[in-house]
Amino acid sequence: MKRQKTVKDSEATMTEMVLPNDTNTLNNLMGGKLMHWMDIVAAISAQRHSNSIVVTASADSISFKNPIALGNVVTLKAQVTRAFNTSMEVYIEVFAEDIPANSKITTHRAFFTFVAVDEKGKPVQVPALKPITEEEKELFEGALRRRQLRLILGKRMDPKDAAELKSLFDLEDTSKNQ
Amino acid sequence: MKRQKTVKDSEATMTEMVLPNDTNTLNNLMGGKLMHWMDIVAAISAQRHSNSIVVTASADSISFKNPIALGNVVTLKAQVTRAFNTSMEVYIEVFAEDIPANSKITTHRAFFTFVAVDEKGKPVQVPALKPITEEEKELFEGALRRRQLRLILGKRMDPKDAAELKSLFDLEDTSKNQ
Amino acid sequence: MKRQKTVKDSEATMTEMVLPNDTNTLNNLMGGKLMHWMDIVAAISAQRHSNSIVVTASADSISFKNPIALGNVVTLKAQVTRAFNTSMEVYIEVFAEDIPANSKITTHRAFFTFVAVDEKGKPVQVPALKPITEEEKELFEGALRRRQLRLILGKRMDPKDAAELKSLFDLEDTSKNQ
Amino acid sequence: MKRQKTVKDSEATMTEMVLPNDTNTLNNLMGGKLMHWMDIVAAISAQRHSNSIVVTASADSISFKNPIALGNVVTLKAQVTRAFNTSMEVYIEVFAEDIPANSKITTHRAFFTFVAVDEKGKPVQVPALKPITEEEKELFEGALRRRQLRLILGKRMDPKDAAELKSLFDLEDTSKNQ
Amino acid sequence: MKRQKTVKDSEATMTEMVLPNDTNTLNNLMGGKLMHWMDIVAAISAQRHSNSIVVTASADSISFKNPIALGNVVTLKAQVTRAFNTSMEVYIEVFAEDIPANSKITTHRAFFTFVAVDEKGKPVQVPALKPITEEEKELFEGALRRRQLRLILGKRMDPKDAAELKSLFDLEDTSKNQ
Amino acid sequence: MKRQKTVKDSEATMTEMVLPNDTNTLNNLMGGKLMHWMDIVAAISAQRHSNSIVVTASADSISFKNPIALGNVVTLKAQVTRAFNTSMEVYIEVFAEDIPANSKITTHRAFFTFVAVDEKGKPVQVPALKPITEEEKELFEGALRRRQLRLILGKRMDPKDAAELKSLFDLEDTSKNQ
Repeated sequence: MKRQKTVKDSEATMTEMVLPNDTNTLNNLMGGKLMHWMDIVAAISAQRHSNSIVVTASADSISFKNPIALGNVVTLKAQVTRAFNTSMEVYIEVFAEDIPANSKITTHRAFFTFVAVDEKGKPVQVPALKPITEEEKELFEGALRRRQLRLILGKRMDPKDAAELKSLFDLEDTSKNQ
Repeated sequence: MKRQKTVKDSEATMTEMVLPNDTNTLNNLMGGKLMHWMDIVAAISAQRHSNSIVVTASADSISFKNPIALGNVVTLKAQVTRAFNTSMEVYIEVFAEDIPANSKITTHRAFFTFVAVDEKGKPVQVPALKPITEEEKELFEGALRRRQLRLILGKRMDPKDAAELKSLFDLEDTSKNQ
Repeated sequence: MKRQKTVKDSEATMTEMVLPNDTNTLNNLMGGKLMHWMDIVAAISAQRHSNSIVVTASADSISFKNPIALGNVVTLKAQVTRAFNTSMEVYIEVFAEDIPANSKITTHRAFFTFVAVDEKGKPVQVPALKPITEEEKELFEGALRRRQLRLILGKRMDPKDAAELKSLFDLEDTSKNQ
Repeated sequence: MKRQKTVKDSEATMTEMVLPNDTNTLNNLMGGKLMHWMDIVAAISAQRHSNSIVVTASADSISFKNPIALGNVVTLKAQVTRAFNTSMEVYIEVFAEDIPANSKITTHRAFFTFVAVDEKGKPVQVPALKPITEEEKELFEGALRRRQLRLILGKRMDPKDAAELKSLFDLEDTSKNQ
Repeated sequence: MKRQKTVKDSEATMTEMVLPNDTNTLNNLMGGKLMHWMDIVAAISAQRHSNSIVVTASADSISFKNPIALGNVVTLKAQVTRAFNTSMEVYIEVFAEDIPANSKITTHRAFFTFVAVDEKGKPVQVPALKPITEEEKELFEGALRRRQLRLILGKRMDPKDAAELKSLFDLEDTSKNQ
Repeated sequence: MKRQKTVKDSEATMTEMVLPNDTNTLNNLMGGKLMHWMDIVAAISAQRHSNSIVVTASADSISFKNPIALGNVVTLKAQVTRAFNTSMEVYIEVFAEDIPANSKITTHRAFFTFVAVDEKGKPVQVPALKPITEEEKELFEGALRRRQLRLILGKRMDPKDAAELKSLFDLEDTSKNQ
């Protein structure tokens, strides 16, 4: 039987200060720099789950709502949400603090996927993930739906076969009613 | 009437060499570094279209298929595909060359959106984009559909209202037939 | 009465991957780079306690026993151990993991002190620290002794006045015996 | 007989300009960055003495009294003070200049120790150091006392055995008088 | 017969944003940073012509007339002007844009030379360059004269032998007239 | 009368270790990185002479003969050779050491010029330079000739007016003989 690991085993926390070279003309953190940090903390989380080298397979769409200012402290928390055969989905939450102002000012959420590989870059099997808390179970369930969306957007799945995803559009029910 | 600009006006090309600090344990470019470069070249393109400061609004999902090796030359080309009121969608193509081996080895495609802002960060209007070639027109048309997907994924649109996007799933036809 | 905060309020965790430019000829993390990271994570912890800007006042002596290899993941945990009038002592623990090898291979411990300042760099008062657990209390007690050592090494205290520190040398007992 | 080298043989000078990314919110050089530079210049000095690869063994406590501003020129001078079997103590002096203001504004002093190693990281013998000037002799003498303090702080020596260090506390005289 | 390549085959374009760490006290791009970028884009161009590893052989004198400000977008275009046996001359043009102000504000021009080498650093033959347009032909012709100047400045040619270069000083005509 | 300063007043020494990101595919220091360091050390030297902000005006042609390897220690020494009205010529010597091999392996020589400016970027007068040693006098004399070459190469002087430079080509004597 396949080995199981918990979400807790894969947790990774990263803290960065926003320095001048990380900012745009408005003195706010550049989106690309934040994605760079997300990739690193998520890779560490995937490494912790798989105990292997990992390579980034995909980054889901990310929305940048609130600007993060120069001098802010950015905390990124990553955890594996579900493991497939050789790949893992990682969930990343981002907090930005203006500590002297005592405010935790913004939040980003993102999903990255990674493939575990050996030293020649060949994919290797990863342990299963066993969700325990309610939140972990919810992220675990949603992982299937997000995976179908990735396959469709990457043109590797026909949208008609995406049973899980269709429910997002509430469409099967609609057609049944007709 | 609103001013119009062409796709050509917004083109930006960036070339980078993959240096040791950009790579993971397998000596391949880290995904996060590539996203960082994408953000910079796309921002320059959006600046050229809007002649204003721009901030990253979103990055669409990105799939990392082929590894890019240490020492490779990475070329990123960005162009605005469509302008909305104060925002723009930018399309980025990535090429990786192993020049001594005379091979152009991999390709990435990505969409980022940017908002044009003034010096206080307040959104400002941008010129319309006038597509000319067939390829430009296709990217222009698809921009609406990708925008609906972003709004749904960002939970700012109800999937039932995404007329453009539904066609992706070929669902309306299906239900009509029932 | 002066406001009190707990150790938990000041905790900060930082995770870094050892990249090529961080290493020496033997492919191990350079000591100076580690001290740079220690300073950042400790400053964040001191900021969290004081809710103000902080500047480094001192770094206690650090011993580098075990090498940390290229590709390792370095985790730095910082917490305030004791607050004085305008300054704070911060304790930093460092872990280095070779995740594919499933080993947590080394540990560093260090103490830094910071002064809380306003925007003109003038020192400002900080809340008191209330230790709760046994370990927190021990670090809190030791802070006085380490402070005397700093003052002596910085030539700002006469060694004869360092009552707390003398006990370290077990000298009062010795003289009593004569 | 063991080969001898002079202090002059090991001198190293490093000059850096304080750039935006090196500074904190007050536009002053971060302590951690200065320690990073100290480590590099001291390592070069230890390399010059030993003609071998060196690794940082320890950094003595450092006090940060005067802020160094953005745009200042920082000069670090390093020299070996004493060589032991396979290790060396290096003394570092730091000057900060605001050249347009014609002022040399601050001074730091620090001691680092390094171990000479071969390409597998195994310690190798280093030449003896022969002090010549009065200042060199004073640093040479003090090196023993600082070494005992390091061993005690690193918990590798019992304070009671630190004959050299006890004199710092003026304690032997005291006990003799009783 | 030796293989020929066109100028177009070697074109390389690089785009960079001027970030805080790239600037001096006046918030303008430092000359040394610009030369660093010139070297990278020119090396890529020389790689494209020779399909081999290249090393910088020389940089001709560069004059820095107009300052380039923080936040500007710098575009560097490089192309091979002439190929010799194992070396190539590369011409670099630099444009700086203040995009929000809709101005393309400054221009630099520079010549670098590179040698094509194999993996052990031994020089290897490069294809000939075939100029096509008028501008390409002019740069091709001038390359001989610039090469003589380099050889004289590098003290590897006696100025009396520099027939091409003498014409620059209009001196042969003068002496004939006497 | 104008204030005078000596060459010694302007001396600046910089020491850098060649790190992975500074090197090309052959593990040798990239020419562009070396020029970046040259610019910084030469600017510090020009600042020391003028006690003002300085901006790079030009870099004379540089020839890269010997490769500098990863891990080498690079020492750059800069000194002002001659001061004009608001500009200064700076001479830079570069040494590269492979310290474990006990070899000082390569040498570069370069000339940069800088203009002293006030905080608005307006040129300001600089002190005169008084050469003392034979070597300083030789560099002082040659500065005029190099300046004419810069003016001609920058197309700001007619070659026929370059009396100093003509002697380089030994041409006036030649024509007299005819």
